[in-house]
Amino acid sequence: RSGEMAKLTQLIDNEVFRAYATYATIVLLKMMLMSLITAYFRITRKAFVNPEDTASFGKGESAKKYLRTDPDVERVRRGHLNDLENIVPFLGIGLLYALSGPEVSTALLHFRIFTGARIAHTFAYLIPLPQPGRGLSWAVAYSVTISMAYKVLKTVLYL
Amino acid sequence: RSGEMAKLTQLIDNEVFRAYATYATIVLLKMMLMSLITAYFRITRKAFVNPEDTASFGKGESAKKYLRTDPDVERVRRGHLNDLENIVPFLGIGLLYALSGPEVSTALLHFRIFTGARIAHTFAYLIPLPQPGRGLSWAVAYSVTISMAYKVLKTVLYL
Amino acid sequence: RSGEMAKLTQLIDNEVFRAYATYATIVLLKMMLMSLITAYFRITRKAFVNPEDTASFGKGESAKKYLRTDPDVERVRRGHLNDLENIVPFLGIGLLYALSGPEVSTALLHFRIFTGARIAHTFAYLIPLPQPGRGLSWAVAYSVTISMAYKVLKTVLYL
Repeated sequence: RSGEMAKLTQLIDNEVFRAYATYATIVLLKMMLMSLITAYFRITRKAFVNPEDTASFGKGESAKKYLRTDPDVERVRRGHLNDLENIVPFLGIGLLYALSGPEVSTALLHFRIFTGARIAHTFAYLIPLPQPGRGLSWAVAYSVTISMAYKVLKTVLYL
Repeated sequence: RSGEMAKLTQLIDNEVFRAYATYATIVLLKMMLMSLITAYFRITRKAFVNPEDTASFGKGESAKKYLRTDPDVERVRRGHLNDLENIVPFLGIGLLYALSGPEVSTALLHFRIFTGARIAHTFAYLIPLPQPGRGLSWAVAYSVTISMAYKVLKTVLYL
Repeated sequence: RSGEMAKLTQLIDNEVFRAYATYATIVLLKMMLMSLITAYFRITRKAFVNPEDTASFGKGESAKKYLRTDPDVERVRRGHLNDLENIVPFLGIGLLYALSGPEVSTALLHFRIFTGARIAHTFAYLIPLPQPGRGLSWAVAYSVTISMAYKVLKTVLYL
């Protein structure tokens, strides 16, 4: 069993894999932050969706008026969903890419640009910045994922 | 090639990795169950979103009235989306955590609490329980993921 | 360090793992395509959700009229969300399944049917095909994931 643990440790000791683990964790923590920002806006804007969430505001009509949508809440939720749509492919393709034996420097370049672009995307969405700010940051992260997918398919293709 | 298979088998034989595989699968099956619950409520409440789904109810106006939203359907869908937002980080961070060499007992504690909290979250959402039932179960699972992310970054940080 | 790299290479050289990597990448690329289709319909139908996205159409009321929902855009978005709900379980359970030592032919059967069914699901959703076209393709992919989950739990169960 100590032999098994050693092998697992070797996986996590590999530089490319460590870089993947670091940036995947950062980008997932960033995505998780969207939940807190949504909660913050729901509470400060008093805009809820579940009746049980407004019970502390009283009963009946006085609480019902807080069951409403708010533009700021909806904006954060759209950013959160966009994160899911783009970070899920990064997690899967990025893991396979990290295992496909890329150069450390090339892998770091991919992971750093993706992570930077997704953080920029969040700022562009929440501030919001004028277009094409959000569009460009989205496209950069998207392109990085496509580039990793190409490397994965070139390395492992087995249909 | 039998050497390679042996190495893969060693990964899946590692106790922490087996625990991760077990709880990740359970929590994903729980998330998949949300699709069936959504379908159940759509059919029993006759509340659909795609015109082609109501064709069996007849043509024209008689079918169109079933293209509507229903509070129970929307509630399950919100629970499903909340699962995606929280289980995706668990899958990614949990895998890296399992590879970062934690104690078996500590890892089990993380996986069990996360899984229990997400199952509790589903019950709290669907019954629904009064707050802070749903909020607390969400926060517990969220905190477990943060704790694993901290361990991952402490172990592998490579920027 | 060359020893570590060798081990990583062995993982990616395993036939089942290569098959998983190939089909996981294909199905993620397919999911990513939904973003482009959404953007295509938003632009051609002139139906946007963020005010900053309509700024190029002018100021005030002339731009505001493009902040609207469009049936085609919403349809693609539902297909995209359905992908997330079903491809995330495939990614997680499929990875664990690939590591659980299945026969290459059995694994290929699972991966191919899942990928084919999800591609069929997208066509069924976007054309749209009459039911039960979309329902069946959804159920086939769902069943494949359940089958892999069963194999994973049978192999690794560690509660």
